[in-house]
Amino acid sequence: VIVDTAAKAAAQTAEYAGEVLARLRKRAPRVHCLTNTVAQAYTANMLLAAGAVPSMTVSPEEIGGFVGSADAVLINLGTLDTERRAAIAIALDAVNSAGKPWVLDPVMVERSASRAGFAAELLHRMPRAVRLNTGEFAALSGNDPTDDSIAGFAVTHGAVVAVTGQGDRVSDGRRRALIENGDPAMALVTAMGCAGSALTAAALAVEVDPFVAVTAAIAAFGVAGEVAALSARGPGSFAIAMIDALHHLDRATLAARIKASLAG
Amino acid sequence: VIVDTAAKAAAQTAEYAGEVLARLRKRAPRVHCLTNTVAQAYTANMLLAAGAVPSMTVSPEEIGGFVGSADAVLINLGTLDTERRAAIAIALDAVNSAGKPWVLDPVMVERSASRAGFAAELLHRMPRAVRLNTGEFAALSGNDPTDDSIAGFAVTHGAVVAVTGQGDRVSDGRRRALIENGDPAMALVTAMGCAGSALTAAALAVEVDPFVAVTAAIAAFGVAGEVAALSARGPGSFAIAMIDALHHLDRATLAARIKASLAG
Amino acid sequence: VIVDTAAKAAAQTAEYAGEVLARLRKRAPRVHCLTNTVAQAYTANMLLAAGAVPSMTVSPEEIGGFVGSADAVLINLGTLDTERRAAIAIALDAVNSAGKPWVLDPVMVERSASRAGFAAELLHRMPRAVRLNTGEFAALSGNDPTDDSIAGFAVTHGAVVAVTGQGDRVSDGRRRALIENGDPAMALVTAMGCAGSALTAAALAVEVDPFVAVTAAIAAFGVAGEVAALSARGPGSFAIAMIDALHHLDRATLAARIKASLAG
Repeated sequence: VIVDTAAKAAAQTAEYAGEVLARLRKRAPRVHCLTNTVAQAYTANMLLAAGAVPSMTVSPEEIGGFVGSADAVLINLGTLDTERRAAIAIALDAVNSAGKPWVLDPVMVERSASRAGFAAELLHRMPRAVRLNTGEFAALSGNDPTDDSIAGFAVTHGAVVAVTGQGDRVSDGRRRALIENGDPAMALVTAMGCAGSALTAAALAVEVDPFVAVTAAIAAFGVAGEVAALSARGPGSFAIAMIDALHHLDRATLAARIKASLAG
Repeated sequence: VIVDTAAKAAAQTAEYAGEVLARLRKRAPRVHCLTNTVAQAYTANMLLAAGAVPSMTVSPEEIGGFVGSADAVLINLGTLDTERRAAIAIALDAVNSAGKPWVLDPVMVERSASRAGFAAELLHRMPRAVRLNTGEFAALSGNDPTDDSIAGFAVTHGAVVAVTGQGDRVSDGRRRALIENGDPAMALVTAMGCAGSALTAAALAVEVDPFVAVTAAIAAFGVAGEVAALSARGPGSFAIAMIDALHHLDRATLAARIKASLAG
Repeated sequence: VIVDTAAKAAAQTAEYAGEVLARLRKRAPRVHCLTNTVAQAYTANMLLAAGAVPSMTVSPEEIGGFVGSADAVLINLGTLDTERRAAIAIALDAVNSAGKPWVLDPVMVERSASRAGFAAELLHRMPRAVRLNTGEFAALSGNDPTDDSIAGFAVTHGAVVAVTGQGDRVSDGRRRALIENGDPAMALVTAMGCAGSALTAAALAVEVDPFVAVTAAIAAFGVAGEVAALSARGPGSFAIAMIDALHHLDRATLAARIKASLAG
């Protein structure tokens, strides 16, 4: 698709987001999250609010069963410990052999060479999508995030890449989206990016085109942030209001608020 | 007891719940929770709101000390890892040799054969109560939950069994309760069942009749959900309002809201 | 300093707190928290609300990288496990060799001889501050907390000591502060003390005088609790309102609310 006006791009993105949210609420996909202990509860609540069913175990004995009955998997690298690393390896064998989608969130990879090395290995395990922020992208790719560097990274790894921040950029190498929704308070809530990655994994469970799925999830998440900001009195109440907002998000609100450009 | 009218059963259940809440607030029992990392914070806050004192360590070196000074123990099987399994074994030795009550919550046992096997072992370690949902009961017992299958499971394991869902059923084999409180939003909050199991453990610390304790805890929890729903704007604010509601729950509200039948 | 009137002491303490909060918002120090899994999310959100940047990994491979790029470290002894103990050892080597400040929070040390022994070892690793409650102080020091016993403990360990409860007492051995802010609801929220310790660590990252840093953090935290109580409807909404309140806390509110005495 080439969408030649901002209004058409916004309408198209709103259609993606509205359709993905409708399917999540109808199908209730199971999303197994191997995520950090800081993010677990907020991530689970965000998935439940969207209609998905989260699970979070890291036990090597159990991970096969949980991933086997899941529809998508999230791998988030925060608070890695020995058992969590082992669980990731087992989970990726199961998810890849079943052809199910998984999302990599290489959180704070710029803070640790060990984590960066592990993330680089995981990029070879065929994530369907990678969601990360500007600093994390720079650490993993060696480049500042631009339309070209993001598209190049997507091609190299065969994944849809979403770099979020002031303006969220999504690319599968060929197509690209720029989404300008969200609220500054999102940066003041721990696990906000992690929860967004989890929503992306849920979206991949209900939409076969990964570019559409990722774009839909990122756009819906940003709009939920904007709605939350309308009633929040600070970052504490904002975090709670985000969950409420995502749960109630409707097509009219998406259509009214999404600011996007699409190309490719 | 045989309570022959719905009004009398509701009044009796409200009396149980009011009395248990009053004792929790007065005695501040210590409840040690070996629970999953997703549920820990919400569970601890729910216990504190009810008047109990939670602790959560999983360290094998420390578990003896904590269980030794606790009044009840919760064992929840979410996010099991190697150390958590070892901690459970040590904790159950300590709690059973001291004759203290403990509650088993075999969360998501239907998703993993390994977890189901571990739960089956724990059922032989004499839990005072087992709280689980419909799917978990079916996985552990091999039967759909009916009055008879729940009572049979209770007899087999010498425990009070509470199967929660649309209508919460409690039985000790001889007596049974059906409680029809709660709100659909409870299913949209992670760790809600886990927190209910923790409240059940707290109730067992202050009420010697385990059927009364479990019935009281389940009924009070459901009413707190109804009160929370009055002010919530979605599952995020509902989760917070549940804690507020449980903290302030009084006998008048219990009496006005509880819907229950009792038999046996 | 010797501040001879309550009004002057309050004004001085408000100046400390206002200055520390202003620096946190401007400098965004990184605080690495080795804290229990119950407290992680609330602690991270409190730090973000104050302007600091939290990280929480416990992986031995990663801890060096994270501590190396952090400005202060928090060591909290809740939910210790084997890997967490190993991570603490590595973290303290890194933080002490770099001369960075770290805070010890020996949470619930009175409940486990093993934990008390580990805390005693850590006191020899030169924490810049120790924050604990009355029972924890008694378990570690062998004394009830009085002005003299707290000052003596501070001298023995070369650390600023803050004993919080009904009246928070801070001493570096020579100087002492008594802060009478806060709200009873703070005792009904899990991880509240842990989050206060994290704020203390953040304060040490931006203020070289540890007595001033600790006094500022404890006073600001108490005032945030008072502001939160104005709008809270129970312990659930109180916990959220605390985050909002800390985020917006200004010099005028600090000056109007702080009750303190200073001596030494």
